[in-house]
Amino acid sequence: MNGGPIRIAVDCMGGDRAPGEIVAGALAAARAHGLSLLLVGVPEAVTPLLPHEQPGAGADPPSPTVEFVPSDRAVPEGAPPLATLRAMPNASMSVTMRLIRQGRADAAVSAGSTGPTLLAAIREIGMLEGIRRACVGRQILEIHPETFLIDLGPTIDCEAHHLVEFAVMGTTYMRVFGGVAEPTVALLSNGREPGKGNKVVKQAADLLGRSGLRFVGLVEGHHLMAGEANVVVCDGFVGNAVLKTVEGLGREAAAWLRRELEGIVPAARADEIARRLIAWTNPIDLRGSLPLLGVRGHVVMAHGASDRTAIHAAIGQAVEAVRGGFVERLRAALGDMREHLGRAKMHS
Amino acid sequence: MNGGPIRIAVDCMGGDRAPGEIVAGALAAARAHGLSLLLVGVPEAVTPLLPHEQPGAGADPPSPTVEFVPSDRAVPEGAPPLATLRAMPNASMSVTMRLIRQGRADAAVSAGSTGPTLLAAIREIGMLEGIRRACVGRQILEIHPETFLIDLGPTIDCEAHHLVEFAVMGTTYMRVFGGVAEPTVALLSNGREPGKGNKVVKQAADLLGRSGLRFVGLVEGHHLMAGEANVVVCDGFVGNAVLKTVEGLGREAAAWLRRELEGIVPAARADEIARRLIAWTNPIDLRGSLPLLGVRGHVVMAHGASDRTAIHAAIGQAVEAVRGGFVERLRAALGDMREHLGRAKMHS
Repeated sequence: MNGGPIRIAVDCMGGDRAPGEIVAGALAAARAHGLSLLLVGVPEAVTPLLPHEQPGAGADPPSPTVEFVPSDRAVPEGAPPLATLRAMPNASMSVTMRLIRQGRADAAVSAGSTGPTLLAAIREIGMLEGIRRACVGRQILEIHPETFLIDLGPTIDCEAHHLVEFAVMGTTYMRVFGGVAEPTVALLSNGREPGKGNKVVKQAADLLGRSGLRFVGLVEGHHLMAGEANVVVCDGFVGNAVLKTVEGLGREAAAWLRRELEGIVPAARADEIARRLIAWTNPIDLRGSLPLLGVRGHVVMAHGASDRTAIHAAIGQAVEAVRGGFVERLRAALGDMREHLGRAKMHS
Repeated sequence: MNGGPIRIAVDCMGGDRAPGEIVAGALAAARAHGLSLLLVGVPEAVTPLLPHEQPGAGADPPSPTVEFVPSDRAVPEGAPPLATLRAMPNASMSVTMRLIRQGRADAAVSAGSTGPTLLAAIREIGMLEGIRRACVGRQILEIHPETFLIDLGPTIDCEAHHLVEFAVMGTTYMRVFGGVAEPTVALLSNGREPGKGNKVVKQAADLLGRSGLRFVGLVEGHHLMAGEANVVVCDGFVGNAVLKTVEGLGREAAAWLRRELEGIVPAARADEIARRLIAWTNPIDLRGSLPLLGVRGHVVMAHGASDRTAIHAAIGQAVEAVRGGFVERLRAALGDMREHLGRAKMHS
């Protein structure tokens, strides 16, 4: 941050509804939050969508400014991320992330497909010191916003120290975004008793007990669903399986419920209840954005299907991250964890 | 089988409601199916519950007979399974399983805690040729009985060949118990595209493609929930996390639904709908029994909370297993898979 308005770089080419909905959402968010916008995209696609006049810079408070930054198109869904990013050095997500490295933006937002967006962030911004893998987490059920599940996909085949890093990231997330001062941390496992878990979970439980985090032990899937810990940690493979199961079961239950309620409550009311059930079991469709955790900058990934409202919200989350000093707090928390583990090692 | 009535050994000491409900359920099942029962338990606890007169053996068809087999008590919940089984050579589950090895029973049923029961079966009966780990699977959603998830807990830290063995066991299960002639098989993964998955899943996908099974590729959690394959295969750690998540979400959704329906439908009706939602997302509370897969005999594990109805049903499943020749068919299917993989290897 430079003392002026918060500067957000937005990838206008990523996402199913790019660039129209992305630009519209970005402009709305900039007005709402008083931001300085850097809109990244293919000139002929994006410039026709920009406001014709720059808002006055002499106003008090200063009106948001909009700067256009040219790029190539986004890496398309399904393309091999690394090879394509290498072949397209100015892919829209890469240029967007680069603005952080160049000190021109405080945060970046993209609705591009997850693999390339994540990889572009890692390549352009770099990882936080000592973090080897970026990850994403989520408050998995809207009815339990006090519970955050991490990791949800990027990092599979984890080792124990990755899980400990996830725990730190989740703890910092819940402090900054979840309003929880001292989040409890648990490991997702196949049983609650000490000694349960696969090899990696057992090792991680040992490390977490000495990490300085508020580790409360192992939990099972139903404890996760009941919101029994603030941060529930697992391998991205497991997290993805659980997340997709929750989303899928929510939709199955909603369809079942529509049939059950037929003839008992009016159809419109039944539809409304079923929709709400889908909404709280599919929170990505609701908030639509996830901060990327572990990179050396504020990056928010919006859902690929984002419309202007979702992009507006994603940019709002980026603003929250910048205002809350998320990356700085995460760096400090990682240092704190390492100090605890180092100390525990010395004393053992 | 010996040409006479099917002979079922029942552990009368295992389970929260042993021995009263176990004996009552066993006697009811024996009458319903015309079985020969071997009731295993502590004499002073079980013999008072036995029928005073032996049913006549000269009747036509022969009436079921009840034989009492003395044992010690069950290994209690929470005790270390292996050490306790070694210290209690005549624990009720061990004596029950031993009756299969001795050729005195065609199948065994126990509601004892999972760890000791499973281990007793492995120790007393032994594994099928070439199978290193026993496992359990389940038709995970009552609304999708066409879909079986395996493994659900016993085998964590799996290798690829374990997953292939699970696929064979699941396929045989669905043929014998699910009424599906040629079950499709999928691997649970973090994405559907080829190349997704952790290391073990990737290796297993390669093996399954050459296994002679009807392998249809990778699925995610929501495909599992939608019943998109007949047999969905995963590591027991992942399967347990998914299962418990489904059970927990079902209960959360039911509680939410009760609140949503308040004032819209009569309370009794709302309760009834919520109960049904719990039932189909918590199928263990419904069927209450699981065949143990991979051992050299027919073993059905009943839920620890089983009442007489659940025990009756569990014994019914044991009868189905014996009549369907489950173990023999599983042995043949494993041989077939190995032949395919061996042939594929020779040709590669």
